[in-house]
Amino acid sequence: VSSILIRDGWIVTPKGEGVQVIQEGAVAIEGSKIVAVGRSEDMGSKGSYEITIDASKKAILPGFIDAHIHTSLSLVRGLAQDVAESEWMHRTVGPFTRHYDRDTALVGSKLCVLEAIKSGTTCFCDYGAFMSHLGREVFAKSGVRADICTTINEMGTGPRRAGELYEFDADIGEEKIKSNLELIQTLHGTADGRITCHFGPQAADMMSKELLLRVKELAQEYNVPIHMHIAQGGRERAQMTKRYGMSTVQFLRKIDYLSQNLIAVHCHDSTEEEIQTLVQNGVRMVGCPGSIGLIDGVVPPLQDFISAGGTAALGSDQCPPDGHNMFSQMKYAAILNKVKHQDPTVLPSWKVFRLATIEAAKCHGLGDKVGSLEVGKKADVILLNLDSPHLTPRLGRPIRNIVPNIVHLATGSEVSTVIVDGHIIMDDSQVRTMDEKRVVSDAQDTAEELARRAEADVIEADSGLVRMMREGRL
Amino acid sequence: VSSILIRDGWIVTPKGEGVQVIQEGAVAIEGSKIVAVGRSEDMGSKGSYEITIDASKKAILPGFIDAHIHTSLSLVRGLAQDVAESEWMHRTVGPFTRHYDRDTALVGSKLCVLEAIKSGTTCFCDYGAFMSHLGREVFAKSGVRADICTTINEMGTGPRRAGELYEFDADIGEEKIKSNLELIQTLHGTADGRITCHFGPQAADMMSKELLLRVKELAQEYNVPIHMHIAQGGRERAQMTKRYGMSTVQFLRKIDYLSQNLIAVHCHDSTEEEIQTLVQNGVRMVGCPGSIGLIDGVVPPLQDFISAGGTAALGSDQCPPDGHNMFSQMKYAAILNKVKHQDPTVLPSWKVFRLATIEAAKCHGLGDKVGSLEVGKKADVILLNLDSPHLTPRLGRPIRNIVPNIVHLATGSEVSTVIVDGHIIMDDSQVRTMDEKRVVSDAQDTAEELARRAEADVIEADSGLVRMMREGRL
Repeated sequence: VSSILIRDGWIVTPKGEGVQVIQEGAVAIEGSKIVAVGRSEDMGSKGSYEITIDASKKAILPGFIDAHIHTSLSLVRGLAQDVAESEWMHRTVGPFTRHYDRDTALVGSKLCVLEAIKSGTTCFCDYGAFMSHLGREVFAKSGVRADICTTINEMGTGPRRAGELYEFDADIGEEKIKSNLELIQTLHGTADGRITCHFGPQAADMMSKELLLRVKELAQEYNVPIHMHIAQGGRERAQMTKRYGMSTVQFLRKIDYLSQNLIAVHCHDSTEEEIQTLVQNGVRMVGCPGSIGLIDGVVPPLQDFISAGGTAALGSDQCPPDGHNMFSQMKYAAILNKVKHQDPTVLPSWKVFRLATIEAAKCHGLGDKVGSLEVGKKADVILLNLDSPHLTPRLGRPIRNIVPNIVHLATGSEVSTVIVDGHIIMDDSQVRTMDEKRVVSDAQDTAEELARRAEADVIEADSGLVRMMREGRL
Repeated sequence: VSSILIRDGWIVTPKGEGVQVIQEGAVAIEGSKIVAVGRSEDMGSKGSYEITIDASKKAILPGFIDAHIHTSLSLVRGLAQDVAESEWMHRTVGPFTRHYDRDTALVGSKLCVLEAIKSGTTCFCDYGAFMSHLGREVFAKSGVRADICTTINEMGTGPRRAGELYEFDADIGEEKIKSNLELIQTLHGTADGRITCHFGPQAADMMSKELLLRVKELAQEYNVPIHMHIAQGGRERAQMTKRYGMSTVQFLRKIDYLSQNLIAVHCHDSTEEEIQTLVQNGVRMVGCPGSIGLIDGVVPPLQDFISAGGTAALGSDQCPPDGHNMFSQMKYAAILNKVKHQDPTVLPSWKVFRLATIEAAKCHGLGDKVGSLEVGKKADVILLNLDSPHLTPRLGRPIRNIVPNIVHLATGSEVSTVIVDGHIIMDDSQVRTMDEKRVVSDAQDTAEELARRAEADVIEADSGLVRMMREGRL
């Protein structure tokens, strides 16, 4: 199809500084691009488009950008929460993920991407292993947009001893940086430009200073961003303090790592001054309120970062509440920052909506391409049924409740149509580029097999969840 | 239908102290009651039941109990959030609700009950005006269970002056107490016992001490509970301090109002000592984490109340995020209490699940009737599709992820079947006792009419949302 007219819906653009809602609006698409956005009545006759979509009682939105996601980890959900932060990584997730292989990652990634498309995500900033494989087999084939990297660290996968410094394994670092390089060399700019790549050093505590600096040089050479977990909490702080005698932000400033090229994920274990330092150096931030709230009991400092003038975005991270669904991330960003600051005016709906769309695009350097419905941008567009009971009523005056209801009330299941790069990849709430039933049943089978392989390690790790199993609480 | 067998699902009972999951379990219903709960293989042949429901890949759960809800207010959603606490009641909600009439309330209530049934709520502890009308026209006819009261206060509906004591109008108090009495006299125990009634004094700052004490006497006379908003925040504190020189809890203790007969909603503006006082006096608590987080930027003290040994429940209140959906309330209870205490082990999924089921039943004095799947209890049962992408995988070992995934991941749209009092009121995700399209379109029309009536008042109130409208942020 080369031309589509979507008409008579509530458009949330969000162009300029606000949300710029257009009632009874239309979006025209030619090829991969948006060629017109305006009132339906000003958009010419139906006849000149190959497909016309009636969007009355619907919202027309830019597709959501998930600015930080680990798609392959969807298979371990429900298996690592409600435990202490000190247990989470090495005693609940780790015993499962160390049994991951290329096939496990593929099946997990497909499941995640399926559920995310169904809730309106069109761009995936994925972070993980086997990423070239996922790039070709999941992102290219499902038709979504992706900005991806390989996790680089120098960590083995064995059990960790509490309180001791991680031992770095240079061979592992070498292998992973090679894998990230190969990803960039082979996939950056492919699939009609839908796939872009960058570097993914996992965290300052998980690799040597030397490897971190090599990544920085390579990022300059290839002119791509660096996407990195920063100030993740107690585990990281303990390592950084023991190894370098300073916090991650202090360390990164010292080695001249803070720049406009850095996308910093999480940032919750940082002082107000450190947030200022990040912003002043042009660092962009991704907050993952759902996963971090659930796993760590912590609120990402989105409000602080934005107040300081920084560019911030939302990510679903791994195994978040509600699944990989940007509607939930908007809601959690809003409510969690409101309670953190004990101020219900913090992160109003119009601002939160931007964090999942245009600000996220800017965060990943995609601001001229996607993130808003504007002429000349790529046609990544979703439609949302507004006549679901819980999104009723739709009012334009005296208060227009469309954006508040999209942010605070939509659950994602109302998304009916998803268009990426001008192609309809979902309509009637059915994803056309994936075999939904097959993806789900493969995920079930693969997870059962993973659980069998991991069982002995899980029991040995004896986490809070293993104890709850013994006590009949699960 | 007089007998139903639901078989081969994951039953979450939650009997006893934990959740008591039964894999490949079955629930047998005869008339309005549960007659057997166990493993499918132990439950006899299919032939002996009029209806057999295959629940493989599904969860079988007790219907959710929404322990505090204002069903009629669904029409004002999206119209009152992201503003200061001081503005919320009198400058955003008030200008709309003062134009409510009996028909507005009915249409709003139907919309709310529809969306709540669709997400698995079977028992509504509704609080509001026109309650006899809602009891007959909404709760009795839709087939749900309801434990309801009339809002009693002595407040006129006009604008309020900041900083001044509310003027009480005894005539209004008289009219409202009469209405609540009439509700109890005519509807308590009706609709095969599905409808029960109690008293609803709105708050200690909104009525005279004399009227409060009259309610207490009447509650004893009729042997029904008192359901009351307590320690709601700054507005209430200012009134109580000015009028009585003490906090609400101190005042209620002084007038001997704290007892096992009191259901206290919210309680967030209270000290640790006051929480202890409530618990020690047998008061039960309802927390409404979604609505209070969004409106007030505050976390209900559920963890504190439970730790002190109290019985607590969840309510969706009014215009909560995600709509009137107890899955969301479970999620918000968990994540908000985790971040409040900066401890991810707070309110684990098994505990939260109980707050929306068996603990909620106990809270409203319905613990011997509903809230768990046990022989002899009323057959209020819901089925949940577990093979949705975001609820996949389902694992039984080494960690059973069914309850964590129901609490942290289900959004409510996965509910396929709802049974109340042994009657199937929803199957195939369609509510059979309501005309879904009609309810939604009536709500849209009625809300548009309400918005027209309220427009001048809304503009005059000049809330933060009116200012956002002027600035193009909505």
